Amino acid sequence: MSGYKNRILRVNLTDRSFKEESLSEELIHDFVGGRGFGVKLLYDDMKPNSDPLGEENEIIFIAGPLAGTNAQSFSRWKIFFKSPLTGGYFMSSGGGYFASELKYAGFDAVIIKGRADSPVFLWINDGKIELRDASYLWGLGCNDTHTLIREELRNPKVRIACIGPAGENGVKFAGVFSDRRAAGRGGGGTVMGAKNLKAVAVHGREKIDLADPAGFSAAVKEQVNRYKASPRFKHFSETGTQTPEFTNVLGIFPIKNFRGGVLPGIEKMDGSVFTEIRARNTACHSCMIHCGSISKINSGRYRGSWSEGPEYETIWSFSGPILCSDIGLTVAADNVCDDLGLDTISTGNTIGFAYELYEKGLITREDTGGLELTYGNDEPVLTLIKQIAHNKGLGELLAKGTREAARRIGKGSEQYAMHVKGLEIPAYDPRGAKAHGLSYITMNLGADHCAGYAGQEIFGAPYKGKAVDRFAVKGKGEMTKWNQDDKAIWNLGIMCNFATGYIDHELYGKLLSTATGRQEFADTDYLWLVGERVYNLERMFNIREGFGRKDDVFPERFLKEPMPVGPSAGQVFEADPLLEDYYRARSWDPKTGIPHEDKLKELGLDFTIGV
Amino acid sequence: MSGYKNRILRVNLTDRSFKEESLSEELIHDFVGGRGFGVKLLYDDMKPNSDPLGEENEIIFIAGPLAGTNAQSFSRWKIFFKSPLTGGYFMSSGGGYFASELKYAGFDAVIIKGRADSPVFLWINDGKIELRDASYLWGLGCNDTHTLIREELRNPKVRIACIGPAGENGVKFAGVFSDRRAAGRGGGGTVMGAKNLKAVAVHGREKIDLADPAGFSAAVKEQVNRYKASPRFKHFSETGTQTPEFTNVLGIFPIKNFRGGVLPGIEKMDGSVFTEIRARNTACHSCMIHCGSISKINSGRYRGSWSEGPEYETIWSFSGPILCSDIGLTVAADNVCDDLGLDTISTGNTIGFAYELYEKGLITREDTGGLELTYGNDEPVLTLIKQIAHNKGLGELLAKGTREAARRIGKGSEQYAMHVKGLEIPAYDPRGAKAHGLSYITMNLGADHCAGYAGQEIFGAPYKGKAVDRFAVKGKGEMTKWNQDDKAIWNLGIMCNFATGYIDHELYGKLLSTATGRQEFADTDYLWLVGERVYNLERMFNIREGFGRKDDVFPERFLKEPMPVGPSAGQVFEADPLLEDYYRARSWDPKTGIPHEDKLKELGLDFTIGV
Repeated sequence: MSGYKNRILRVNLTDRSFKEESLSEELIHDFVGGRGFGVKLLYDDMKPNSDPLGEENEIIFIAGPLAGTNAQSFSRWKIFFKSPLTGGYFMSSGGGYFASELKYAGFDAVIIKGRADSPVFLWINDGKIELRDASYLWGLGCNDTHTLIREELRNPKVRIACIGPAGENGVKFAGVFSDRRAAGRGGGGTVMGAKNLKAVAVHGREKIDLADPAGFSAAVKEQVNRYKASPRFKHFSETGTQTPEFTNVLGIFPIKNFRGGVLPGIEKMDGSVFTEIRARNTACHSCMIHCGSISKINSGRYRGSWSEGPEYETIWSFSGPILCSDIGLTVAADNVCDDLGLDTISTGNTIGFAYELYEKGLITREDTGGLELTYGNDEPVLTLIKQIAHNKGLGELLAKGTREAARRIGKGSEQYAMHVKGLEIPAYDPRGAKAHGLSYITMNLGADHCAGYAGQEIFGAPYKGKAVDRFAVKGKGEMTKWNQDDKAIWNLGIMCNFATGYIDHELYGKLLSTATGRQEFADTDYLWLVGERVYNLERMFNIREGFGRKDDVFPERFLKEPMPVGPSAGQVFEADPLLEDYYRARSWDPKTGIPHEDKLKELGLDFTIGV
Repeated sequence: MSGYKNRILRVNLTDRSFKEESLSEELIHDFVGGRGFGVKLLYDDMKPNSDPLGEENEIIFIAGPLAGTNAQSFSRWKIFFKSPLTGGYFMSSGGGYFASELKYAGFDAVIIKGRADSPVFLWINDGKIELRDASYLWGLGCNDTHTLIREELRNPKVRIACIGPAGENGVKFAGVFSDRRAAGRGGGGTVMGAKNLKAVAVHGREKIDLADPAGFSAAVKEQVNRYKASPRFKHFSETGTQTPEFTNVLGIFPIKNFRGGVLPGIEKMDGSVFTEIRARNTACHSCMIHCGSISKINSGRYRGSWSEGPEYETIWSFSGPILCSDIGLTVAADNVCDDLGLDTISTGNTIGFAYELYEKGLITREDTGGLELTYGNDEPVLTLIKQIAHNKGLGELLAKGTREAARRIGKGSEQYAMHVKGLEIPAYDPRGAKAHGLSYITMNLGADHCAGYAGQEIFGAPYKGKAVDRFAVKGKGEMTKWNQDDKAIWNLGIMCNFATGYIDHELYGKLLSTATGRQEFADTDYLWLVGERVYNLERMFNIREGFGRKDDVFPERFLKEPMPVGPSAGQVFEADPLLEDYYRARSWDPKTGIPHEDKLKELGLDFTIGV
């Protein structure tokens, strides 16, 4: 088989058994790869109402059909699991070199369930499988874990996806980390921790066969030319994803737990600062963009701190929420989160939530152990991050995520928990970008910013040839569906979100079809069908778990408190008309939020009807 | 050339120039390799009275003629420099994989002088040389530095010798670290920091030629057989160097800044504890002993802490000096020292010194910033270590080492500074092991425990076929000379101190001569000559710097305060008769401590006469 390795590894940690299976013709045809494989495998394997932290939950690692080839920007890996944070379907993505190495080691996917009776790590060495003792790694940060596993295996080239103390300690938003590249969101690290699984280590020398090497080579060449011709390519190569200005000028850079959209002093975090702190660029496997970077702080209170990135979201996580514009804090906090194994978005959002509760008197100095959570005071942040990761002090509460923490605190604090379906909201205020917000609210993952990103509202990308009014309600249902299904298409091959803009579905289809030999993948209509199929199957996973329209909700703040100042002043999020428009576009029942049977049949998802 | 690479690299950081040269016939014949090369090169290059932190100081990295071959236990690397701690000749050694890699990269030695105008690291890649920017690494710990250099060079197999913040910040006892293996003593890291040299990175694929492959192979086979036949081999393989009991039962495990020799509660740090915390063994290149280990603390206050080792000396450093028997502290402190780049011996000794000053009221709570330096209180230790590395708080003073710190404090505190020639005394009380103490006091490095180790007193090894009374004075001069010259012999090939006991000079000579083709190295009388030559040239380096008998002195405590309790109770160190016996054995002038001219001529050191 070409592109694919045609090999799935199933690991049961409870009895420490392994099983291998091939990809079925139906799976390949119907779901293409990547996110398609992930949702189908998880849907098929999982019983409804399974405990996300129980043996029955799975964590599935997937590399796409183009990972490991010289096609550009296909080196992301995805994990799929039922989220301990949302209780629903989850998918999270990381970059670097883990995906290509998993392919070289012989596998498209690794499906892990059960629970080991003591800490272990999984070692996939050129097709050979082993579970090894990880007791001595338990409690260690991600960085030390990488070092010690490579040393133990006497193989410095091993690639590793691991958890830090946060995942071990049951923090609900613990991520999975590979050389500081995070599949951060939704609690994949929490699932690994509950399984006593410290890491997955992979290395191999297998080749990726190509169905049509010449055709593939021509497609890659075309891809490279498109990259080079794009001004955005040059920009991303030089400055990465780091500038927070582009949302601030729209007035949607959330501050003070989403009570404003303009951060005072943001000029201290503008482009020139990132040039100054950028020590060097970094890149994922086979990606000429090299948008990543090592940043280093050379002055101020956080002098000497460094991190990989930080990316836009992380820059926001430790600035807007607490009203701080010291990039030093962001870099220092990013480093600690990467090492302790925390999702920076949920961490920053949750800390911002704590600051508002403190302001409102819903938590006191006694609860914080003396920490002064007043806006502008960045001093408590690193302490809070460590407390969260170790489930100590106030961190014991915050480690549950905003939804659950608010439930425990009560006294009306629920209204300040800024999440959708339990997943903390990221760095775009939905009141000033309606389609982006509509995707937050409807996404099966909860408030995810990637899988329905509304570039039309944020970067001014045209939609069907026309400019889009970001405040408008009309037409946003259809546009949101388009954005979500489009992202689902790119996620089949697992192309990086920062790279999809350089090429189109045609060239993408050519890359997929010449690599795999599947002619249907060259048909963009077919890709649209699969994209929508994948999106709806994810929905049906959640429907089976009891989700519905009742869960497609925002905190009331966005609906009732108009944005107070700035370029989005006066805006609220018009949830009802937006949702109705969206359900109509999706052909979902507007009352229940469940896809109509006709739609499910049209998408070949008959097996989900009536779950 | 065989064994050797016949290639020395000279780097001048000031003008960023490189020069290569061959080994001269004289250097090889007269000094064999390793320590012999180190002292000769340093003696020739350095002008007297050079500033150890100035451009004129050198730091010389040397791999031995057998490094990189499959002979066992020859993988240590040495650094040579004028010490900022003692102001004299210094040599320090590290293990791991740096020495073999330096050979594979094409060099026997790297001589670095000058000072870069901004932080750099040296990259030796299969014979190609480059100085690369290290600004972004400045301030980083040794662990992150290893990771980021490997990533920057896109070569995970690179071996690195680097400094941490301690070396950058001018801490006088900063070491050089390679994958957590330390060339810790004497301030080699301080010298690198003063040169703005963050690291030396090496990788290569060159082979080591052998003059007589069959003869060498037979010698290695014999070596392996000798290892296997030794009960000590089995012991070291299984438990490493970790038990502190062997000195405690002699009453020479120093406690409370050398005011006793028995640690209460030492049973909490006995063999079974090390078995319990030992996660796995580690080894240096081509060494079947694998005496190293990764230790991990699974309970108590330091739960989750881990380190490489700790070795015997480090176990002592954070227990005896402050009266603590929690192995957790030792492991935690070891990890922090390895990362921040500190010599554990000087760090622990200096902290013990501070505890005594606190007890005596010579420093107060104000000086310590509120830290309670009372015996048995381990709480301040990790804080003090960080303060030392960053030159902050009380650490600003302690970072100078005990001698200089005492000078600054005054008020009689000098008597509590437990050092020889400025080098802090390690984990054997000289009052209960006179030859061991005599080596401390006369060693050119200061109080070094390796290069004159008196196994006869500590392990009951016979000397010239007879058992030795460790309290006796008589004959200890000659025995100390024998120990020191013997160690110098093993240091020519740079064989590990933990391995020399398995073989003898004959087999060692066979390994050296079959590898290099130099027949004279098979002659053990010749090796004794070179050993003594090396030792005396080191002496002459120091004589040239103004050292003499006046510097062969102990703190008065050992001379005047009898050991209060335990198996060495009542003993003092009889400095005068011991020294006189030693000078006689060495043929050194008993008044000045300078080698007699006849001796220097006999050793072929005529060029040092009258310096």
